[in-house]
Amino acid sequence: MGKTGKTNSGYFFEDFKLGQKLVHATPRTVDQGEVALYTALYGTRFVLNSSVAFAQSLGLSTAPVDDLLVFHIVFGKTVPDVSLNAVANLGYADCRFLAPVYPGDTLFARSEVIGLKENSNGKTGVVYVRSTGTNQRQEKILEYVRWVMVNKRDESAPAPQTQVPDLPEFVSPDNLTPLSTTLTLSAYDTALSGSAHLWDDYEVGEKIDHVDGMTIEEAEHMIATRLYQNTAKVHFDQFAQSKGRFGKRLIYGGHVISLARSLSFNGLANAFHIAAINGGRHVSPCFAGDTVYAWSEILGKAPLKGRTDVGALRVRTIAAKNHPCADFPLMGVGKDYHEAVILDLDTWLLLPRRP
Amino acid sequence: MGKTGKTNSGYFFEDFKLGQKLVHATPRTVDQGEVALYTALYGTRFVLNSSVAFAQSLGLSTAPVDDLLVFHIVFGKTVPDVSLNAVANLGYADCRFLAPVYPGDTLFARSEVIGLKENSNGKTGVVYVRSTGTNQRQEKILEYVRWVMVNKRDESAPAPQTQVPDLPEFVSPDNLTPLSTTLTLSAYDTALSGSAHLWDDYEVGEKIDHVDGMTIEEAEHMIATRLYQNTAKVHFDQFAQSKGRFGKRLIYGGHVISLARSLSFNGLANAFHIAAINGGRHVSPCFAGDTVYAWSEILGKAPLKGRTDVGALRVRTIAAKNHPCADFPLMGVGKDYHEAVILDLDTWLLLPRRP
Amino acid sequence: MGKTGKTNSGYFFEDFKLGQKLVHATPRTVDQGEVALYTALYGTRFVLNSSVAFAQSLGLSTAPVDDLLVFHIVFGKTVPDVSLNAVANLGYADCRFLAPVYPGDTLFARSEVIGLKENSNGKTGVVYVRSTGTNQRQEKILEYVRWVMVNKRDESAPAPQTQVPDLPEFVSPDNLTPLSTTLTLSAYDTALSGSAHLWDDYEVGEKIDHVDGMTIEEAEHMIATRLYQNTAKVHFDQFAQSKGRFGKRLIYGGHVISLARSLSFNGLANAFHIAAINGGRHVSPCFAGDTVYAWSEILGKAPLKGRTDVGALRVRTIAAKNHPCADFPLMGVGKDYHEAVILDLDTWLLLPRRP
Repeated sequence: MGKTGKTNSGYFFEDFKLGQKLVHATPRTVDQGEVALYTALYGTRFVLNSSVAFAQSLGLSTAPVDDLLVFHIVFGKTVPDVSLNAVANLGYADCRFLAPVYPGDTLFARSEVIGLKENSNGKTGVVYVRSTGTNQRQEKILEYVRWVMVNKRDESAPAPQTQVPDLPEFVSPDNLTPLSTTLTLSAYDTALSGSAHLWDDYEVGEKIDHVDGMTIEEAEHMIATRLYQNTAKVHFDQFAQSKGRFGKRLIYGGHVISLARSLSFNGLANAFHIAAINGGRHVSPCFAGDTVYAWSEILGKAPLKGRTDVGALRVRTIAAKNHPCADFPLMGVGKDYHEAVILDLDTWLLLPRRP
Repeated sequence: MGKTGKTNSGYFFEDFKLGQKLVHATPRTVDQGEVALYTALYGTRFVLNSSVAFAQSLGLSTAPVDDLLVFHIVFGKTVPDVSLNAVANLGYADCRFLAPVYPGDTLFARSEVIGLKENSNGKTGVVYVRSTGTNQRQEKILEYVRWVMVNKRDESAPAPQTQVPDLPEFVSPDNLTPLSTTLTLSAYDTALSGSAHLWDDYEVGEKIDHVDGMTIEEAEHMIATRLYQNTAKVHFDQFAQSKGRFGKRLIYGGHVISLARSLSFNGLANAFHIAAINGGRHVSPCFAGDTVYAWSEILGKAPLKGRTDVGALRVRTIAAKNHPCADFPLMGVGKDYHEAVILDLDTWLLLPRRP
Repeated sequence: MGKTGKTNSGYFFEDFKLGQKLVHATPRTVDQGEVALYTALYGTRFVLNSSVAFAQSLGLSTAPVDDLLVFHIVFGKTVPDVSLNAVANLGYADCRFLAPVYPGDTLFARSEVIGLKENSNGKTGVVYVRSTGTNQRQEKILEYVRWVMVNKRDESAPAPQTQVPDLPEFVSPDNLTPLSTTLTLSAYDTALSGSAHLWDDYEVGEKIDHVDGMTIEEAEHMIATRLYQNTAKVHFDQFAQSKGRFGKRLIYGGHVISLARSLSFNGLANAFHIAAINGGRHVSPCFAGDTVYAWSEILGKAPLKGRTDVGALRVRTIAAKNHPCADFPLMGVGKDYHEAVILDLDTWLLLPRRP
């Protein structure tokens, strides 16, 4: 079943069956070291993750681990099974962060195959999996759907019955949970958080240029991707990549997501938590030497069920390379993206509300 | 007041007022991860920071966080307010380390404007701030003055009354505190510390070549500078810098200070604590690819008030690039520094005294 | 005695005496930060080191620190004394891991000179040392022999009596200890560990291509080598190395060992512990930009004394650069290694046995 000999050859398209459940190796404890490295790789400054004292002032036991660090680690565990033979990572949907992760917690990852569709060429197919991250107490901390195009091992293998899951365009705000039930935002100090702008201050349609740019080095994205124990070969092996399509190592798409999130502090400093990722698309590849910029548009606003102290913003964040975002680059000619755009990400972010 | 729109545009010269107090975002917890990264970035080997067991043998609860890691984090917090629009970082003075920082402590930063002087060109001015780092118990752990040349937003803004603070040429040894009141050096083991040379063994005027050299990579200084959550754009954005004065990213001056301190282990291994930075000047810029060397001269010696087990050395440390320091490079022609010199740093270092 | 002036000039050949005992500076506490960095530098995924929850399910108090991280730190401490004036690192033997290291433990290193042999040229000699790592409770956690060729300071210094220690070709399986006496493998979960292949499934003579490749950047090997507080100049100083034999910085041999171990997860995922290093040879130098691949051959199998749940495999691991290992590169023409081979390592690895 996708594992032959002593080494892992991953799952090919015909190895996946609808309803199949995969237990991913290897569980991973996230602790102070991972947290510090994440800061050092992206320069993130969101106050709840940065300061134990601040987190405790809001009713948490300590500073929670950055949402995207959790995402990347869970995602990394699915790679050796789900996407080792992937041709393309096609998309994410319905990603919800369900419970906080604290330093010392151990993350486990599982996936269920929820959709299959062989391509007409008979060589590849699209696999839809719902992946779940749980902690050492079997609490779900993260859930998301992704779909990837995967090679067939044997082109003559029969096509499975096509089943494409029904996925929400975006997560309903009714399904968003605050980071933790013990979190109360009454003591949230905007002098310490870095911005006076709360949920109330953002308007639907508003665009924000996050201004700053960050150049990526080979050592950085490889250190990050290994930190996540993501084993996709295209990120690490220059000898093989030098003979490949781009001639160089591809940067893990999640690295760009984290950079964009970190850059978005300048304009969205009080967006203390990613409650959901509605969808995401890696529009173009990113390589070492590229400088990443980002801008955001507020797509929607919603109060959070039963809470008056916190609200959700639906935010589209665009990352571009080698192109500062004062002109909010998005579409190019026709239906294509602007040539500088590398990421189109749709999230629900939580911010404190004005009392 | 320097903050317009959703993004942070920093303070311009006319935004600063004498006596103004700034609370800097975002507080930061320093823990095992930051400590390990600091070691990995500089290779520092000072025994008190390196070993919990050693620190405990001297009466501390655990190994304190490296003084410069504390400095860089506090400094980094001041950047988005004080120096985002700075033309030049002109100097430091009167920097004193007042209490130990232990893993798990959270650092907060505040500044007070203590001097203002508009330049005659009407385009820029010099701002003097006294910055203070405190921990989660409101204990002061660090205090220093720095002055920067900052752009005016509007050249027609009226000049403030000139006030230049009176700064000590160096911190009086009477104002030095040992790292901690519980620290006793009677059990200090020089076999474990890496050198037999104690406070008593250094002579005023003595020069020490620290011998070793360290080449800096782009990934390293950016990882370090983000670890400090320092957001100064010149360190990170190659796309913008490629069009700038140097054509490349500038390395954070503090990175060079830390490298020089780490190199100084070879010759000053028992200088277990920086009690004060009397002054510092970044003489020339440093870029990725440069190899840093350092040498020191003993400028003064002083006992520590009420202590017979520890003494202070006033040490001038010079860092040079691409120039080994056996010839103690300092001045070039005329009043200029030797072309290889990049840092001129004046510190009070604490060492154990012979019983 | 090898220490002149304020700086450390290391030991020269004539400074070593048979039976001499060296206490190495500086003790080092290994904690969560070191563990996370190690993961980020090599991408290692062995489950016992990766997951606290998994380690606890097997009877350990928490996840032990990776064996090679312990080795590199102890090794690094010996460098300023033993090999600062080394011409070549000739070999390792009889390396045994004797007790687990947990985050928070402090490592101390000592060495004893067990052999001396002046070379016939009168300029250099070979020094054999047995180095020992202990923790803060004076428990031995690691012991190994290495021999290095060291320069003489003064060619006219008399040659010592030649004494070459008797070293085992490989560690007797009777001398292997399981990682910890509290470790029981009955609950070992192969779905979580990443492979179903246990000790029983490997055959003597079996060869495994570990498939994946990893390219090394300058920043990575320097960050790693500083993490180990290894001060050997050849790894860090491009200015000096540019005038040297290779024109570039040499990568610490231990970095390649760790990369090969990490790559070997793909094929040996259940080899949860290195019980011994029988021998190791750095066949050729490795430089930044090189891509490392690895393959292994099973040289022997042995049960572990008094245990039915764990067995030892004697494994030869070969690392090659810029040469994928599907063809198991080893020897070239005559008695020389294949030109791509950079490491030849002989270890005893522990794996769970089938009940």
